Amino acid sequence: MNGAALVCAAAGERYGADEPRWRGDSGELLDLEWTPAFFPERIRQRSPNLWRYREAIPVREDRNIVSFGEGFTPLFPATLAGQKILIKLDHLFPTGSYKDRGATVLISKARELGIRAVVQDSSGNAGVSIACYSALAGIRCEIFVPASTSPAKLVQIRHAGATLREIPGSREDTARAARKRAEEVYYASHCWNPFFHHGTKTFAFELWEQLSWRAPGTIILPAGNGTLVLGTWIGFRELMEAGFLDRMPVIVAVQASACAPLAAAFLQPSAHTLPAIELHPTAAEGIAIAEPVRWKGIVQAVRETGGIVQTVEEAEILGALRETGAMGLCIEPTAAAAVAGAKKYLAQNDAVGPVVTVVTGHGLKSPEKLLPHP
Amino acid sequence: MNGAALVCAAAGERYGADEPRWRGDSGELLDLEWTPAFFPERIRQRSPNLWRYREAIPVREDRNIVSFGEGFTPLFPATLAGQKILIKLDHLFPTGSYKDRGATVLISKARELGIRAVVQDSSGNAGVSIACYSALAGIRCEIFVPASTSPAKLVQIRHAGATLREIPGSREDTARAARKRAEEVYYASHCWNPFFHHGTKTFAFELWEQLSWRAPGTIILPAGNGTLVLGTWIGFRELMEAGFLDRMPVIVAVQASACAPLAAAFLQPSAHTLPAIELHPTAAEGIAIAEPVRWKGIVQAVRETGGIVQTVEEAEILGALRETGAMGLCIEPTAAAAVAGAKKYLAQNDAVGPVVTVVTGHGLKSPEKLLPHP
Repeated sequence: MNGAALVCAAAGERYGADEPRWRGDSGELLDLEWTPAFFPERIRQRSPNLWRYREAIPVREDRNIVSFGEGFTPLFPATLAGQKILIKLDHLFPTGSYKDRGATVLISKARELGIRAVVQDSSGNAGVSIACYSALAGIRCEIFVPASTSPAKLVQIRHAGATLREIPGSREDTARAARKRAEEVYYASHCWNPFFHHGTKTFAFELWEQLSWRAPGTIILPAGNGTLVLGTWIGFRELMEAGFLDRMPVIVAVQASACAPLAAAFLQPSAHTLPAIELHPTAAEGIAIAEPVRWKGIVQAVRETGGIVQTVEEAEILGALRETGAMGLCIEPTAAAAVAGAKKYLAQNDAVGPVVTVVTGHGLKSPEKLLPHP
Repeated sequence: MNGAALVCAAAGERYGADEPRWRGDSGELLDLEWTPAFFPERIRQRSPNLWRYREAIPVREDRNIVSFGEGFTPLFPATLAGQKILIKLDHLFPTGSYKDRGATVLISKARELGIRAVVQDSSGNAGVSIACYSALAGIRCEIFVPASTSPAKLVQIRHAGATLREIPGSREDTARAARKRAEEVYYASHCWNPFFHHGTKTFAFELWEQLSWRAPGTIILPAGNGTLVLGTWIGFRELMEAGFLDRMPVIVAVQASACAPLAAAFLQPSAHTLPAIELHPTAAEGIAIAEPVRWKGIVQAVRETGGIVQTVEEAEILGALRETGAMGLCIEPTAAAAVAGAKKYLAQNDAVGPVVTVVTGHGLKSPEKLLPHP
């Protein structure tokens, strides 16, 4: 981690990576600049969890690692719409969602920085992850969620001993309330805090290893705040820069048509502000984000890898939920949105193989949404 | 699998291992007799799931394997009652419980036998596992459960497309109804069918590998129908017989005091029938089994390894649920019973180390039981 820095691309500011900050003095987003390392022979010998990529994770000392042994999730071969696809089973993380990738790294870093309390806002799953890893680390935790969040997620947050703040109104009202609190308490945000993305990037490392140290051709991912799109992009870029790959995979981002600001931005390459969109209810609560703060980076990652933002209708999401259920998979509607997007993308495009998608959240997160079955 | 046989110890009958039967002609229990093999160098090279012990799993052909890539769950180091312990995180299986160990092997064997439909009865989790693996295999599935089963488990069974039969009355009424149906349809029972135990035995293999090819000193497991106790005993015995270990670990079985027939049988070494017990309500629904069919084998496994049957009170179960929650673990009350049993056993005995316990089911299986938090 020598020479690591938090940099603000917009304002040109630089800060030490050990400053407990989540934005620049100008209020703009920060990214982490540093040089990871990869040693396949060492990686191969280690336990099958995401910390096997130890030299590529920006936490200095092993004693600060806060971990349940999470990650290295199965890559499940399936057939969707008559085409072979690999589905990464990220709903099998300890708290039931891929957000644990970000939480294990961010909370480890928080422990390393000596932080005693964190605040976070979430549509549910990221809040659960931060609450559970904070509990393991002995860090006090306060989670802001929209009042409409799935009940089981609220139970998980409270059961981990976090303070739960249910905010009436939209997801953006929740974010505003949390940012206000973050003036006093360290903001463990999966949107703002770059250490979170340096956890979700392990998704790329695992694919690289599971495909015998090669990249997939196409990766189809759900996108709300884009934590998995950004992490995947960072991870593959790090592998490219370290000389282990010679091309990036195509990254396709999937949004529910009911809430698709990234799709709108993708269609307006010259826009400097995020297009305002019409909002409709969606079963995919985890990606119902009208104003993703890192929208520019997400759209850029998709565009520069040759991908698109694929939208899916509610009927397609529910269809994918039924179809995966009939395969024996138990996933939440947000995860089904990605599967629906993968089907649609494969039907309409000549995708470069191998093609990978992901299921990001467990069906037990919102069982009330799995039925009725037709 | 050459020379494999289904044998009935009670009546001395022998049948081919490829006969689709789950009991002897005399109506008695069957065990599988065969010779597994272990090749650590091959095991080490394979994907981190339970099928890495391929030569020790009684399924002939790889093409019959029905798998989501499950198993090789994390071994999480924790401190309980001031003592170091390793907790195996078996709640991270695809359907949210360790029962997937048995289901992946049993349903693979069912596919190998050309079976088109199965029936099963369960207090919930085993039914979910059999339903989901049957769905993946394209096998029709009918699950009998007590009407009082946790709602999320019922949703999982229906979502996988299985036919759900909710039976009023006790767990034993459910078992009787299923056994009647099993006169016509293959009985994929986690209690009767020995192939299920040849899946749960992979728990032992994983511990052996994760402890650098050694056995733990003591293993503390929840016990209702005893599928994990029996599987663990079979697995370590197979490793002993293959020359990889020179002693068995001590196996401690944990029961809720509210429903503890195995504890009663353990105290009456000469009993030929299962002692009748008084039944009280318990939060540990997964082990509330008044008449476990394999009770003799379970008690024998505990006794011959130098273990005991440890009972725990409801307050201790709820205490362990709170304590694990405060660690960031999200497990169901049945799983907390094992943790409570581990604490109590460690406090009252000089346990041989390393000591291992397990959390068997995810808290999202019954979130309504995780709160209120005091």
